[in-house]
Amino acid sequence: MVYYPIYGGRQDQYLQSVLSPQKDVEGLNHQFLFNLYHNTRFINPSTLRPIPASHLAEALPSKGKPASDDIAPEGTVKSILPCTPLAIVKVLEHIGVYNKLLAYGDRARGKVVTVINRSEVVGRPLAALLANDGARVISVDLDSVVEFSKRPSTEDDKRPLGQHHITTPLPDMTLAKALNISDVVISAVPVDSFKVPTKELKDGCICVNVAGEKNFEADVREQASIYVPSVGVMTITMLQRNLLRLCEYQDMIKEQSK
Amino acid sequence: MVYYPIYGGRQDQYLQSVLSPQKDVEGLNHQFLFNLYHNTRFINPSTLRPIPASHLAEALPSKGKPASDDIAPEGTVKSILPCTPLAIVKVLEHIGVYNKLLAYGDRARGKVVTVINRSEVVGRPLAALLANDGARVISVDLDSVVEFSKRPSTEDDKRPLGQHHITTPLPDMTLAKALNISDVVISAVPVDSFKVPTKELKDGCICVNVAGEKNFEADVREQASIYVPSVGVMTITMLQRNLLRLCEYQDMIKEQSK
Repeated sequence: MVYYPIYGGRQDQYLQSVLSPQKDVEGLNHQFLFNLYHNTRFINPSTLRPIPASHLAEALPSKGKPASDDIAPEGTVKSILPCTPLAIVKVLEHIGVYNKLLAYGDRARGKVVTVINRSEVVGRPLAALLANDGARVISVDLDSVVEFSKRPSTEDDKRPLGQHHITTPLPDMTLAKALNISDVVISAVPVDSFKVPTKELKDGCICVNVAGEKNFEADVREQASIYVPSVGVMTITMLQRNLLRLCEYQDMIKEQSK
Repeated sequence: MVYYPIYGGRQDQYLQSVLSPQKDVEGLNHQFLFNLYHNTRFINPSTLRPIPASHLAEALPSKGKPASDDIAPEGTVKSILPCTPLAIVKVLEHIGVYNKLLAYGDRARGKVVTVINRSEVVGRPLAALLANDGARVISVDLDSVVEFSKRPSTEDDKRPLGQHHITTPLPDMTLAKALNISDVVISAVPVDSFKVPTKELKDGCICVNVAGEKNFEADVREQASIYVPSVGVMTITMLQRNLLRLCEYQDMIKEQSK
């Protein structure tokens, strides 16, 4: 049995959604609340299922072996990615952070990326996405520094390469130390007074400002080889791409159910 | 297309869960996030379903006509209710707020209940639950007063009696006015300094304190006929009941899938 709050906020709600309603003694998961609000008192117990799990064997033919290229295997389609993190990945691909000579799913290998802010809508999914693509991500937030990586720096190298990243707290790491060693610095802090100190940046690094505010100092270009001041337009484009894909998927579903 | 935040916090997350992933261009629903974190890149589009919907026709044989008693129809079981709101209902049943002579699902009819605090974990589901049982609920929060009722006071009486409550903003209502006319006052404000003024209570009303703090003044019993100082023990009991029910449901599911 677990007691909420664990982390609080959206992170708890993610955990709550992972849980099967068959185990929700608190009765606060979406399905039970929906029933309550709609005065639905009696249900078929077989409807008590976890949120549709794309990760189950039936849904994931390639389970066990990582996909070897970016073409979806027969019978599958690509999952949808949150549009802001995806926009940032597209920007990084464009400016050469992703190496197309490397295997699909590992093209950011060898890159150290600092992501400042670990919110549930941008920072955390972005860190996971980059780590799943092979990068070593140092995720910095007010209260902690955490590494997201498929090849954790703190573990024995003999650990088999996992299909997805794992997270490791880095208690001795600081923002300054992280900036010193980072090839890419992505900042998403919605506070006007927050600035990444230019003097801590590694010479020639790539800086990406995701916040509406300017998170980098005016002289950032003196250290950075490339500075991307905003990603908003790309985010809108990715949102439109998600829209087109979902339309296509809906057509496929209609076709399948004929 | 909608833009978040709409209300912010848990209320938005409820809305987000109502939405089908087939329409989630933002890509932040649970299923897509789960895929992202687990590096699941390809999915079967038919797994893109809304959260299991107990309210669909197949799951709700009695759809259209309200259940006439509290015995679950063949093939169905009772839905699970959040344990704190359920505990309060059980307390109100015990002290006679629910009238057993009235039809099931309408046994709180004629009662005016003020619920102070409209949080997503207690106040709002409690207001909905009582309204679905026939009460007229006045839900008071810092920023607004809202009525939850199957028989809205502001609408034409000829409206057919809905299967579930509807909510109506009451811009002219105040806490004092609500207390003046309430048969039951339930307070769940987690603030030590907040007190329901005894002098505003209707003589002979029933007061229930849900917060850990004392939300009623020391002299509350001078106006209230019954004062329930806490519901914590009942909440734990309801949690245990939910646990036993879910165990039973799991057995039924296993049985069905044999």
